Amino acid sequence: MATAGDVKNISLAAGGKLRIEWAGNAMPVLKLIEKRFAKEQPLKGLVIAACLHVTAETANLMLALKAGGAKVYLCASNPLSTQDDVAASLVKDYQIPTFAIKGEDTKMYYAHLNAVLDMHPNITMDDGADLVSLLHTKRKDQLSEIIGSSEETTTGVIRLKAMMKDAALKIPVFAVNDSDTKHMFDNRYGTGQSTLDGMMRATNMLIAGKTFVVAGYGWCGRGLASRAHGMGAHVIVTEVDSIKALEAVMDGYTVMPMAKAAKIGDMFVTVTGDKNVISFDHMLAMKDGAVIANSGHFNVEVAVEMLQKKAKSHRTIRTYVEEYTLSDGTKRFLLAEGRLINLSAAEGHPAEVMDMSFANQALAAEFFIKNKGKLDVKVYTISKEMDQEIARLKLKAMGVQFDTLTDEQEAYLGSWQEGT
Amino acid sequence: MATAGDVKNISLAAGGKLRIEWAGNAMPVLKLIEKRFAKEQPLKGLVIAACLHVTAETANLMLALKAGGAKVYLCASNPLSTQDDVAASLVKDYQIPTFAIKGEDTKMYYAHLNAVLDMHPNITMDDGADLVSLLHTKRKDQLSEIIGSSEETTTGVIRLKAMMKDAALKIPVFAVNDSDTKHMFDNRYGTGQSTLDGMMRATNMLIAGKTFVVAGYGWCGRGLASRAHGMGAHVIVTEVDSIKALEAVMDGYTVMPMAKAAKIGDMFVTVTGDKNVISFDHMLAMKDGAVIANSGHFNVEVAVEMLQKKAKSHRTIRTYVEEYTLSDGTKRFLLAEGRLINLSAAEGHPAEVMDMSFANQALAAEFFIKNKGKLDVKVYTISKEMDQEIARLKLKAMGVQFDTLTDEQEAYLGSWQEGT
Amino acid sequence: MATAGDVKNISLAAGGKLRIEWAGNAMPVLKLIEKRFAKEQPLKGLVIAACLHVTAETANLMLALKAGGAKVYLCASNPLSTQDDVAASLVKDYQIPTFAIKGEDTKMYYAHLNAVLDMHPNITMDDGADLVSLLHTKRKDQLSEIIGSSEETTTGVIRLKAMMKDAALKIPVFAVNDSDTKHMFDNRYGTGQSTLDGMMRATNMLIAGKTFVVAGYGWCGRGLASRAHGMGAHVIVTEVDSIKALEAVMDGYTVMPMAKAAKIGDMFVTVTGDKNVISFDHMLAMKDGAVIANSGHFNVEVAVEMLQKKAKSHRTIRTYVEEYTLSDGTKRFLLAEGRLINLSAAEGHPAEVMDMSFANQALAAEFFIKNKGKLDVKVYTISKEMDQEIARLKLKAMGVQFDTLTDEQEAYLGSWQEGT
Amino acid sequence: MATAGDVKNISLAAGGKLRIEWAGNAMPVLKLIEKRFAKEQPLKGLVIAACLHVTAETANLMLALKAGGAKVYLCASNPLSTQDDVAASLVKDYQIPTFAIKGEDTKMYYAHLNAVLDMHPNITMDDGADLVSLLHTKRKDQLSEIIGSSEETTTGVIRLKAMMKDAALKIPVFAVNDSDTKHMFDNRYGTGQSTLDGMMRATNMLIAGKTFVVAGYGWCGRGLASRAHGMGAHVIVTEVDSIKALEAVMDGYTVMPMAKAAKIGDMFVTVTGDKNVISFDHMLAMKDGAVIANSGHFNVEVAVEMLQKKAKSHRTIRTYVEEYTLSDGTKRFLLAEGRLINLSAAEGHPAEVMDMSFANQALAAEFFIKNKGKLDVKVYTISKEMDQEIARLKLKAMGVQFDTLTDEQEAYLGSWQEGT
Repeated sequence: MATAGDVKNISLAAGGKLRIEWAGNAMPVLKLIEKRFAKEQPLKGLVIAACLHVTAETANLMLALKAGGAKVYLCASNPLSTQDDVAASLVKDYQIPTFAIKGEDTKMYYAHLNAVLDMHPNITMDDGADLVSLLHTKRKDQLSEIIGSSEETTTGVIRLKAMMKDAALKIPVFAVNDSDTKHMFDNRYGTGQSTLDGMMRATNMLIAGKTFVVAGYGWCGRGLASRAHGMGAHVIVTEVDSIKALEAVMDGYTVMPMAKAAKIGDMFVTVTGDKNVISFDHMLAMKDGAVIANSGHFNVEVAVEMLQKKAKSHRTIRTYVEEYTLSDGTKRFLLAEGRLINLSAAEGHPAEVMDMSFANQALAAEFFIKNKGKLDVKVYTISKEMDQEIARLKLKAMGVQFDTLTDEQEAYLGSWQEGT
Repeated sequence: MATAGDVKNISLAAGGKLRIEWAGNAMPVLKLIEKRFAKEQPLKGLVIAACLHVTAETANLMLALKAGGAKVYLCASNPLSTQDDVAASLVKDYQIPTFAIKGEDTKMYYAHLNAVLDMHPNITMDDGADLVSLLHTKRKDQLSEIIGSSEETTTGVIRLKAMMKDAALKIPVFAVNDSDTKHMFDNRYGTGQSTLDGMMRATNMLIAGKTFVVAGYGWCGRGLASRAHGMGAHVIVTEVDSIKALEAVMDGYTVMPMAKAAKIGDMFVTVTGDKNVISFDHMLAMKDGAVIANSGHFNVEVAVEMLQKKAKSHRTIRTYVEEYTLSDGTKRFLLAEGRLINLSAAEGHPAEVMDMSFANQALAAEFFIKNKGKLDVKVYTISKEMDQEIARLKLKAMGVQFDTLTDEQEAYLGSWQEGT
Repeated sequence: MATAGDVKNISLAAGGKLRIEWAGNAMPVLKLIEKRFAKEQPLKGLVIAACLHVTAETANLMLALKAGGAKVYLCASNPLSTQDDVAASLVKDYQIPTFAIKGEDTKMYYAHLNAVLDMHPNITMDDGADLVSLLHTKRKDQLSEIIGSSEETTTGVIRLKAMMKDAALKIPVFAVNDSDTKHMFDNRYGTGQSTLDGMMRATNMLIAGKTFVVAGYGWCGRGLASRAHGMGAHVIVTEVDSIKALEAVMDGYTVMPMAKAAKIGDMFVTVTGDKNVISFDHMLAMKDGAVIANSGHFNVEVAVEMLQKKAKSHRTIRTYVEEYTLSDGTKRFLLAEGRLINLSAAEGHPAEVMDMSFANQALAAEFFIKNKGKLDVKVYTISKEMDQEIARLKLKAMGVQFDTLTDEQEAYLGSWQEGT
Repeated sequence: MATAGDVKNISLAAGGKLRIEWAGNAMPVLKLIEKRFAKEQPLKGLVIAACLHVTAETANLMLALKAGGAKVYLCASNPLSTQDDVAASLVKDYQIPTFAIKGEDTKMYYAHLNAVLDMHPNITMDDGADLVSLLHTKRKDQLSEIIGSSEETTTGVIRLKAMMKDAALKIPVFAVNDSDTKHMFDNRYGTGQSTLDGMMRATNMLIAGKTFVVAGYGWCGRGLASRAHGMGAHVIVTEVDSIKALEAVMDGYTVMPMAKAAKIGDMFVTVTGDKNVISFDHMLAMKDGAVIANSGHFNVEVAVEMLQKKAKSHRTIRTYVEEYTLSDGTKRFLLAEGRLINLSAAEGHPAEVMDMSFANQALAAEFFIKNKGKLDVKVYTISKEMDQEIARLKLKAMGVQFDTLTDEQEAYLGSWQEGT
């Protein structure tokens, strides 16, 4: 694999450059960090390998890291999420080696992961823990070269915590996802909007009046349910956690098991982080014409393989819409092959939320290098103060003012004698 | 003070008895616990002193504790929140000594607190930390008799944590408020509805079209903003925490400092846990006819004393509505003297949410006695499993079914090798 | 019957006077009309008999009519909706003969109607068409004295149109309800809020998470569904009109026949203008503990008599909450005897919406006298211009500014040559 | 111009055919009409010229008309709204001459209109009244050949009513837009979703937290405000009609003049039917980075020409996003050249709503031929019964059941004697 990267078509760079600029307009917090990094050079001499969705927003993170003095290498964290023009521009206009082609197969996907690890990074960034997983299995020899690794998404954090529990984790990791300024915004408002955006682009179906089933009521599910409702859908939520299920009921949604929801839903989306949440039996139970999508990180949430195996026939009726005809003649429509609908059929989260997520990523890299040698093998999270600072910068950039505690108020919160 | 209690009028008992029964209908989880307590007698021999809002819901908690074998004494946690008929019924129909009269002055308030402490409790329950505070100041001699104390509300937990920080805390405490099944439901859906309920009963004003200012975007503020919006108001949120402020913006509300909101709001409610959140200067800046209420625990959130001092004149124009005329002739309407509007002008949180809050209280008492002698002097919280169990029982009572992880799904969540 | 009126207790007047003043604060449009009326005396010499809900808002209408020079007589349009203190104040403080006692029986109800007709009015005002009906049946001799009659509510307008169809109508009538500034606001935002307010006051039940069935998706139903949803309920709508049913679906509600909704609803409210919308069979099908209310004009929407007849036993468990135990031992809770829940258990529509409704009423009276002798026997409605003027005054009073067409824009709307 | 039509690239037909099939899946009411038409041949011998947005949904209307026996010719009603693959398929697969190329200039646009009029139609269909306008100006000789013309949109109906007022109208017209099953659904839910869809596709900007200005609160504006709010925006409404302005306030939106909104908005959309609603002065007052779009029929709502003239420079930064740099260096982003954003940047209204709109169109054609010779020169609208029947068929297709009046209820509505 060429060290300059592997992209679909380098001549797409011009469009990608504009797209990166456009996204950058909506990322003021990251831009402030980039400016400081350019001056302070905190990442000087570091090699960073990032396995993230190759989008215009990610490109802006790469620019910030490079501005900070790092050598940066990028590969895709999902075979369908790459924006080929952005990848081209990163290589051509910014000399950031990028290994990502939209629609790449699993073999190429892993070749790209290995290509960035071949650069012997000191810091890695993951969106789904694939680099970390590779480092702990096939490339253990490189573990000692790693200062730390940061993780973007819920699914990746679940994997990392499972590794910790198994005592399999060998490097310090930073759970970017656990920052309030990440999961409360990116997962909720980002996933909410971009998932619907992807479904509308793929199908052009009316959401109003539809029975819309959301599997999972974590931050992503909450955001998605809220937005589907906001577009006029009747929202049904499925959950395995009783507290989340109860919250969904109180938020005005209908809660039921998937086996029951399957029979009445028009559109289904999984955002759980688990597998076979929509099984083939569920698909069998669905109405003729039901639409199925996944917005969870991995394409294991919907039993796609079983559907492919059991369906009588299959055709692409629209881009990202696969029509499966079952043996009884009824149809199910699977979007984007069950992969992340928001990154496949649309453009992923809007830059406005990635601004904060990637501010966290950039600060995580700085955290690693600042604390090099003092770090434990565990999952780190952001400090409350830094988290609040990111939000403060965001509000400032948005022109929103808010209150400050008076001294009297500050003192009152710290006292306990004053009562009724 | 008579050991049988101190209530306004014992002849109100009949109405109170029906009210307790009515609330009990909506508290299935607490009823299940009461049933088990009656059989297992886990609280046998204990003396419990509770300082809680004396409402029909609290009465049902008292019945559960008594059923568990405890001797129970109750006083009010707020001078305006007592339901006199409920207090009467507790004394007359259930032989539970109750010390609470709606409208009692500060002196009587503290006399009632002391009355229940005179019973030498082993376990205390607070809603605002007043009993704990008394035990740590004027009644230190009784500290050694206490097995533990549980705390219902955010404000109380803030006080307890301040005590811990000052190393002033001397007994184990249990933060009921920190249970998900408490603060996510009681604080949010309970406060949201009951605060509006109180404001509508007090004023009969139309909410739709009003500019409604919510000070504080914690769980209570989120619930209140959501409900005010749901009634058609334009909601403005004020906050001191940048992350919460940003969340409010993304939730579709307008965020600004109180000094600015004061000028454009029609109705104001404080739910912050801090003092002088609406200062007299804010009130001066408000429009003629502005309505001000508090739904935070203590009546310190609005600068009531300063308003009383500076106003030119003052009269009660409706029950719970005080009209203050300022020196410029304009008016401000203060609801319920700045005390908890939902418990003063309405009936407090609906029984449906208190069901879970008080299930937590009952289980906290059981936790203390089960772990007697093994407890540290610190703030305990509920276990994830117990919290989920309360939610599970609630869903079951509501007839809501939800999903369970399959073995395959359970295994997947615990694995980390399976990737893209 | 005394010509000074018939009220419950004249000593309640002081409280009623404050309540009238409080409501008047929120009725700026009516106050502007009152001011003009006082100066122009357009109603001089007229006798007006009004059969309206005797509330603080109606009192303000009476003051405006009196200021305009009319002799005004008032009786109640519903046995349960009278505010006795307001009635007392009208008699004592404002010398407006008022015949209304909350809880009056049907006999007294009609005695009161006849009492105001005994005054030989020239103009009548109805909320439900009871005076008009009486004039066309038992008091036909007075028809010739009537210049015109105005009607406040949907149900009344339906009755008047049925009279027209039967050629039974003998006087000019004015459908106040058909003004946009009436039905789009009073019926929607007024009914929406006040119905929920009444239900919360009656039951103190949590709305969030409840399955809330709204029968009828007219203006009242739309408002009620929107507000119930805004409080966190799962809303089911029942309808007989396909267009309205489809609109409800697209607005995100679930639509089904009442026979099906009966089985799953927790709370039921009728706002249809028709009878037996909730039949005894529906009540039989309901869950144990279901709550039933009516917010339509007449208490015919719920089959109350059949319930009373078939229930095994019955008791008042809370004010305005009747508990009926069926033969199978399960319970149904009927609110306010099936009468208008918002006027029985709460205080009716907030003054802010009645301001516009009653501005329409006052202008209807002026319309009749201005056009005396030129009127046809038919149902009149407000002119577009006058309707918009009421809205303009309301916006001005609220401090809301809006746009005006430029000359160019005005011209463009009138042209048809300018195309693509 | 070839009589077979004028399309961009006939080889796109395969994709267009699938797209037409996909849309047809969501148009069950139109499909029922097509089936009946095929059997009854009501349009046999007629020549129909349609000037509509050339989308997959319109293609399904053409198929229904052709199935009914008509010769059908289609041209575009907007230069940017044509789906080139659909146009190709209509010509190739269905032999329906179509004259429409996405991006055609004004000259070609009118050449295409003239091409379909060259076919000497008996019935015309408009979306914006351009064919009717041409018939009444440059092609008056053909007026006598016209049985009737139907009009799809609000803007067109405004033009037709202006023609009637000027006594310029010479043929019977049918205002499809005035059907409840058209404007209450297509204009509201269709425009609401598709406008946001277009804006998200064009910009990928986060809607949550943005200040979103909707100019116009008619059916389209109501739908758009509702959906923008549903995606988390702070919605500001501008209006010139006081009743609509007041409705917007009560619906929870902020109302202000555009001159004031211009200063605080992030995103602006016009849906008024009037011109220069966003003037260059408004654009000058906007914040750096403001986004401007139009979703009204004609591209006159935003002062595009003035912007082009006054801007210092200009470039396309994303497809459908034009960046204008003003003389002060700040930027404004104009979407889709100020043309219908939903049809330019997205695919227009979802098929689900066009199903009913086009059912109205098909029935209008049948109405004309059935009543040929008996029609007056005026604007016809659908009968209540037919309107309800379309809604009934739609509900049936969606599997939604609703109630029917009992005989007793029917009788009650027609009676007027039964009172309190």
